[in-house]
Amino acid sequence: MALIVQKYGGSSVADAESIKRVAKRIVDTRRAGHDVVVAVSAMGDTTDELLDLAGQVAPIPAPRELDMLLSSGERISMALLAMAIHPMGFEARSFTGSQAGMITDATHGAARIVDVTPVRLREALDEGAIVIVAGFQGFNRDTRDITTLGRGGSDTTAVALAAALEADVCEIYSDVDGVFTADPRVVPRARKLDRISSEEMLELAANGAKVLYIRAVEYARRHGVLIHARSTFSSAEGTWVGTGRHPHHVPEGEHMEEPIVAGVATDLGQAKITVVGVPDVPGKAAEIFKIVAKSGANVDMIVQNVSAAGTARTDISFTLPKTDATTALKALAGEQIEVGFESLVHDDQIGKLSVVGAGMRTHSGVSATLFEALSTTGINIEMISTSEIRISVVLRAADIAEAARVVHTAYGLDGDADATIYAGTGR
Amino acid sequence: MALIVQKYGGSSVADAESIKRVAKRIVDTRRAGHDVVVAVSAMGDTTDELLDLAGQVAPIPAPRELDMLLSSGERISMALLAMAIHPMGFEARSFTGSQAGMITDATHGAARIVDVTPVRLREALDEGAIVIVAGFQGFNRDTRDITTLGRGGSDTTAVALAAALEADVCEIYSDVDGVFTADPRVVPRARKLDRISSEEMLELAANGAKVLYIRAVEYARRHGVLIHARSTFSSAEGTWVGTGRHPHHVPEGEHMEEPIVAGVATDLGQAKITVVGVPDVPGKAAEIFKIVAKSGANVDMIVQNVSAAGTARTDISFTLPKTDATTALKALAGEQIEVGFESLVHDDQIGKLSVVGAGMRTHSGVSATLFEALSTTGINIEMISTSEIRISVVLRAADIAEAARVVHTAYGLDGDADATIYAGTGR
Repeated sequence: MALIVQKYGGSSVADAESIKRVAKRIVDTRRAGHDVVVAVSAMGDTTDELLDLAGQVAPIPAPRELDMLLSSGERISMALLAMAIHPMGFEARSFTGSQAGMITDATHGAARIVDVTPVRLREALDEGAIVIVAGFQGFNRDTRDITTLGRGGSDTTAVALAAALEADVCEIYSDVDGVFTADPRVVPRARKLDRISSEEMLELAANGAKVLYIRAVEYARRHGVLIHARSTFSSAEGTWVGTGRHPHHVPEGEHMEEPIVAGVATDLGQAKITVVGVPDVPGKAAEIFKIVAKSGANVDMIVQNVSAAGTARTDISFTLPKTDATTALKALAGEQIEVGFESLVHDDQIGKLSVVGAGMRTHSGVSATLFEALSTTGINIEMISTSEIRISVVLRAADIAEAARVVHTAYGLDGDADATIYAGTGR
Repeated sequence: MALIVQKYGGSSVADAESIKRVAKRIVDTRRAGHDVVVAVSAMGDTTDELLDLAGQVAPIPAPRELDMLLSSGERISMALLAMAIHPMGFEARSFTGSQAGMITDATHGAARIVDVTPVRLREALDEGAIVIVAGFQGFNRDTRDITTLGRGGSDTTAVALAAALEADVCEIYSDVDGVFTADPRVVPRARKLDRISSEEMLELAANGAKVLYIRAVEYARRHGVLIHARSTFSSAEGTWVGTGRHPHHVPEGEHMEEPIVAGVATDLGQAKITVVGVPDVPGKAAEIFKIVAKSGANVDMIVQNVSAAGTARTDISFTLPKTDATTALKALAGEQIEVGFESLVHDDQIGKLSVVGAGMRTHSGVSATLFEALSTTGINIEMISTSEIRISVVLRAADIAEAARVVHTAYGLDGDADATIYAGTGR
């Protein structure tokens, strides 16, 4: 008898049939003797449709009203899910973010959870009911207004509920079987991982892996929540994510017994901006990245070339999400005279490949394997950055797939057969 | 500078364009210097679509969850309406039923308002904002659950807000110009009434007029709220509904200066059941109507014939909504032996015509005019019932339209030209 939190995304509850399928899965868990709390997203494309309507009535919808609008999506899915459970012989009750005690700050559209007070959920559990909670939404105590958590919000809702209720596990359901050593659509021989540490999962998520949202993984790591990433369409075990004492956790301090590299992540969502001919004097880099930060862009990797011989100028390149590139370019162009650079080059044909593994900490030669694998294939490396458990390289976008395959092989990650790929997007 | 409550139904906010049109209308009222509180229904067919989804996941959806589901419809429309107002230069804030302080009992699907505590609405008004409230929904304090008010709920929300905020007027917008002396689709020469007393409006609404819901009119009468029923598509005055001291009210005690008959209502939604051969002994009628009431049917008119000479049996006929007929028939058939009647006759080809007017109280001969008009046209009357300000007759359904026209003429209600008819349903 455990307390299990489950999260189902929009594609898992896209229509009445899917909702009934999820209801059955929830009831099966309850029948096995567990208490069940479910966080559910809005049905299928509901959120996009509501956003579209908002765009039709106002060029820039008021954030408070946008949250009020979007939060109705999960109310629909959670009520339908609760209804679908009743005919299967179990009591189920749905709760909005505020009814569930999901207290956030007042940042509409990207609220941070500040407290979780699941009094009503505990009452319902004590009365034997299955609890269904609206994902993605919360409530601010001061303004008494409804908030939403932003991208990946329902994952975060599930993890936060698991932490507050001290659940045994937080099961995050999607249309993939778990966390893979690489994206199976890019690397056919990718293998599902049985378990992975939070730190490794964070690096993978931050560098292109889409199976879990980085924010939810970070919340889980901080609160010691064990995540089980698994498929809505299969009863097979997925991937256990976490570091701790639970039998399914990656044991603490035992990274040496783990493979050196856990996985290879690829990301085609970034662009590169090069600021050409920057005066090579102290403070210029700070000036540039202050401008970029002010434009709201999230800079990832930065490389500064040494000055060409005989000039007092240098080039500074950085990567950032493609969607941020235009505003960053505009912001920089507006300050060209003040900063004194010569020109801007925008390159959106890049790709990032990252190798992640906690074992890197104690093993040398990990980067050599990467560089060698790429060089024997004749793939050129444009930028390099590293963290304690990750090495990332920027390559031509066209080279990413081949690079991922050779690197995956070089680290001995290949499985015996090709992985099964579902039609879905991984979310 | 007045406080005006406005209610817009689902057809007035069916899509983005309609929402912007309504937003403009609200802003025009605000620009004229008035405080504005708006009660809004769910967009177009949203409620029906949600009901359909509920039916797909559960044969009999749990009432609590159904209310959670349906209440999301108004959250969508109210948020969009508030958003649409902002670009027009005014602040607007949307509030759910619970945020607006609409406290109800716990009867899911047909909750009664027990208290209205519009603290947040007053705050918003004091800060100069236009207030948008979700119609149709409330909140129960004991269960802390969301409730819905049932059919015509948004009209009731608007009237209840007007009462609690002591608004100067409650404007109920629909796709018709106001209250007419008859349904213009039946009686082309029907005229819009400039004003009508609450009592007359109640009788019209109870006997087939669809422009206002009886429950909202009753609430308004009890709390002295002046209703202005008008069209979303025109700025012309509609019909003022109410009895009181306001210049637009029908003056109290001055009915003698009013026309004797305010209007003619028709209703094709009823059926007639005749219980044939009932033993003519005391208590049998009570027995029959106890059975019918227990089946949940709302009986309207009742007629008992005198026993035919030489028999100890009589026939009892009554009318009820067509939708209640099957369950009532079943209930009666199940008790045939106990009650001892001979057979049941079901007739769903009837129509009811009602003539309503406060002036009837002081004028004799009103019914004579009705009977004479019908008899000269050769239309047979099957049942008759009266109240202090109403006479209703049951006719063949096929005769209703002609009957309404001749009666309308007989009471001198005909206008000089045919009324404009909109495509809508009147709601």
